[in-house]
Amino acid sequence: VSKLPIVEGLMKYIKEKNIPFSMPGHKGGRGFYSTEEGKRLFKSIIDIDITEVDGLDNLHSAEGIIAEAQCALKKLYGSEKSYFLVNGSTSGNLAMIFSTFNEGDKIIVERNCHRSIFNAIIMRKLKPIYIKNLISESYNAPFSIDMEHFLQLIEEHSNIRGIVITYPNYYGICTDIKKVIREAHKRDIRVLVDSAHGAHFGINSFLPESAVALGADMVVMSAHKTLPSMTQTAYLHIGKAAEVDKVDFYVSAFTSTSPSYPLLASLDYARFYMEQKGSKDYAECINLANKYRTKINALDNVHIISKEELLDNASVFDKDESRYIINVLKRGSGHHLLSYLRGKGIQAEMSDENNVILILSPFNTEDDFDALYKALKNYTSEAKPCKHTKHISYKLPQVVLQPYEAIERKKFRVLLKDAEGRVAGENIVPYPPGVPLLIAGEYIDREAVEMIKYCLDNELTVLGIENEMIKVI
Amino acid sequence: VSKLPIVEGLMKYIKEKNIPFSMPGHKGGRGFYSTEEGKRLFKSIIDIDITEVDGLDNLHSAEGIIAEAQCALKKLYGSEKSYFLVNGSTSGNLAMIFSTFNEGDKIIVERNCHRSIFNAIIMRKLKPIYIKNLISESYNAPFSIDMEHFLQLIEEHSNIRGIVITYPNYYGICTDIKKVIREAHKRDIRVLVDSAHGAHFGINSFLPESAVALGADMVVMSAHKTLPSMTQTAYLHIGKAAEVDKVDFYVSAFTSTSPSYPLLASLDYARFYMEQKGSKDYAECINLANKYRTKINALDNVHIISKEELLDNASVFDKDESRYIINVLKRGSGHHLLSYLRGKGIQAEMSDENNVILILSPFNTEDDFDALYKALKNYTSEAKPCKHTKHISYKLPQVVLQPYEAIERKKFRVLLKDAEGRVAGENIVPYPPGVPLLIAGEYIDREAVEMIKYCLDNELTVLGIENEMIKVI
Repeated sequence: VSKLPIVEGLMKYIKEKNIPFSMPGHKGGRGFYSTEEGKRLFKSIIDIDITEVDGLDNLHSAEGIIAEAQCALKKLYGSEKSYFLVNGSTSGNLAMIFSTFNEGDKIIVERNCHRSIFNAIIMRKLKPIYIKNLISESYNAPFSIDMEHFLQLIEEHSNIRGIVITYPNYYGICTDIKKVIREAHKRDIRVLVDSAHGAHFGINSFLPESAVALGADMVVMSAHKTLPSMTQTAYLHIGKAAEVDKVDFYVSAFTSTSPSYPLLASLDYARFYMEQKGSKDYAECINLANKYRTKINALDNVHIISKEELLDNASVFDKDESRYIINVLKRGSGHHLLSYLRGKGIQAEMSDENNVILILSPFNTEDDFDALYKALKNYTSEAKPCKHTKHISYKLPQVVLQPYEAIERKKFRVLLKDAEGRVAGENIVPYPPGVPLLIAGEYIDREAVEMIKYCLDNELTVLGIENEMIKVI
Repeated sequence: VSKLPIVEGLMKYIKEKNIPFSMPGHKGGRGFYSTEEGKRLFKSIIDIDITEVDGLDNLHSAEGIIAEAQCALKKLYGSEKSYFLVNGSTSGNLAMIFSTFNEGDKIIVERNCHRSIFNAIIMRKLKPIYIKNLISESYNAPFSIDMEHFLQLIEEHSNIRGIVITYPNYYGICTDIKKVIREAHKRDIRVLVDSAHGAHFGINSFLPESAVALGADMVVMSAHKTLPSMTQTAYLHIGKAAEVDKVDFYVSAFTSTSPSYPLLASLDYARFYMEQKGSKDYAECINLANKYRTKINALDNVHIISKEELLDNASVFDKDESRYIINVLKRGSGHHLLSYLRGKGIQAEMSDENNVILILSPFNTEDDFDALYKALKNYTSEAKPCKHTKHISYKLPQVVLQPYEAIERKKFRVLLKDAEGRVAGENIVPYPPGVPLLIAGEYIDREAVEMIKYCLDNELTVLGIENEMIKVI
């Protein structure tokens, strides 16, 4: 038994000295050590862990150094007001939904929205209407919303109060939110954007435009995912239509009244870095990324998906070129490739059955890319080919109970074969592609049962199913 | 204009090298550098800021190193289950209230509860019934709940679902929660304890017993306030009566899905430190504190309040002897003394009109106490004597709207003299003693108007009043 399990686990990991193609954006401190200001700051990281003494400021009613820093942030992104978040994009998503909607409001949200969005829908007691995700058959993953379905929903339903949409997704792929915003604003519908993976967007023309610049009403960005800021930090930006008093209240309500100054300082530093060096450094980063994409794709071992390959899809608008989607070409498994790379001292961000995602940043050097190239050159998949999902249907089930009602009900387990005609007690999510087949409160019809069986027969992981049992209400 | 306002503000502060009698409990890193394990950890503080890669664990469904560490935490405090919180006691207070109560539930809460408790009451749509605070006339501050009033409330009201109580308060003073718990449990009422300032309690017999040991149903503790853990970290402990599934859900919902490993590691370290060295080190700390209290009180300049002086109050149960309440003896101002000490390189935690609070820890050396002694020896108050509040009445007003209803209503400002017969639009809180005269949604009668005028005439600060205007609904 370890005396200090977490500390020792971390120490063991950092001894591996993996090349960081994963979060956080500072890449093991490189982002701080790349400037004099960052070096000075992070030498003092423990010393600056202090409380709100005189001369410092209070995040919950900022008037001094925090207000000044938030003002600089607002200018960089071009918002009406911007907030530092020390409880991650999660608190931003909660605050944005609580401040914009009231109980019982109908909103449109994509079927595989982030968990914090789903939790906010439950706690604010909203009535969600889901946009289907478009699943790429070639890449075996959900790459955007189904734009046609969105346009149909917005026509069919009245009294839609808002839309919550992800831009970009984990793969760095950007749904056409320009169109979403235009269609929504025509009908006086608010657009809230979960841009957790897009904090670096808009800093130069090689990257997609930022959701703020595209006219979203509220935008949440994880600073730590791509920028040199510490894990658990985020920004919230609001536009003209937001009710500032309400946003202030909810941002504050979901945030510690003892916020961490190291986290706040890193948020300040990330803004400073992007302002001073972001445009030039990201141009170089993308240049390097493109060069190595060509080299790696010539290997014919794996395939890094380019922006051009995605843009023939009408729902896709743009792609973040500082993110690699390494596709295993139907002959292996993404998870297997991720483990292989880790064995070679390379930390990837995420894998699904068919793909491995790498987050690239200006702090990744040519040596990093070279190590990646060499590792991929020697890669031969020993895993059995990944499962495909083209036969999974995405018909949306009938809603019997809203998610907030379902969560409060007593649940029990039944055998899947006896589940027809019942109501789902929790979300049922097959991987791939990670889009819920059923959400708690939805009716389980024969087709749903068949589809779950099909997934299990094909050895997909299905979250929510244990020993062929399913929770029902 | 500063390029990096927060970073530069922090750098300026740490150059002052103040002696830390304030939060956080690690006292500028001393708590980490006092052990080999802590030294090793905090040399790597930036390197360990990593995401949830293989080999580490996921806070939101802990199975590995985080689960192991939380298990060690549970053993130390003797709870049924314990949680690490990286969004401070705030998220613990939200989770405890959301998981225990449902909309419309009646609960008993003390009138000057922490803001996060009040926010939780609003967001969970509860109906609070307030316990009056007992104001110490000699010390001009709210020192505990009014136990008689509590006993009366619990008799008068039926269908009380729970009690939320603070133990200890900011002054280190402990309400008799043993009695509160006994009376509540007799009636099947849950007791939730905001023990933000009591994470070190129970480690030895020189400190008050922990709220967990006293039988509370749920307890939130800020780790950073007194233990060697980083700012914004806390623990949540639950007892047998808690519904674990619900607690899991809400703790997760109010916490970033990208939790900071440096914060988690410091929570693990603080538990380790207390387990290994807490008992012995706190005995020495309190020994030193008592020795210097006697010395300082002999000066006759100020008066550090002892446990014995407080225990003649029937509502008070105990006092944290690792906290100094320095009373200015009606001849100066607490705020003035705090500034004076800062000028002498000593950082106090907090001041009110009559008192200065110091948080002492094992990491404060005899040199620290000696510097404090010398500074106080030379202290002559030049401030005018502080305001007294003995004439402020604490009759509780009539509730017209519940706080969650009041927050959603349109508000406008009227002159105080025209406010009689209206409903308060926000909380009205005179300092001292910092207990709300009116809470949003309460009826403003003639007496309330008179009392606010009395406070203003006597130059007290009254939060919620600006230019003799008050917000009403």
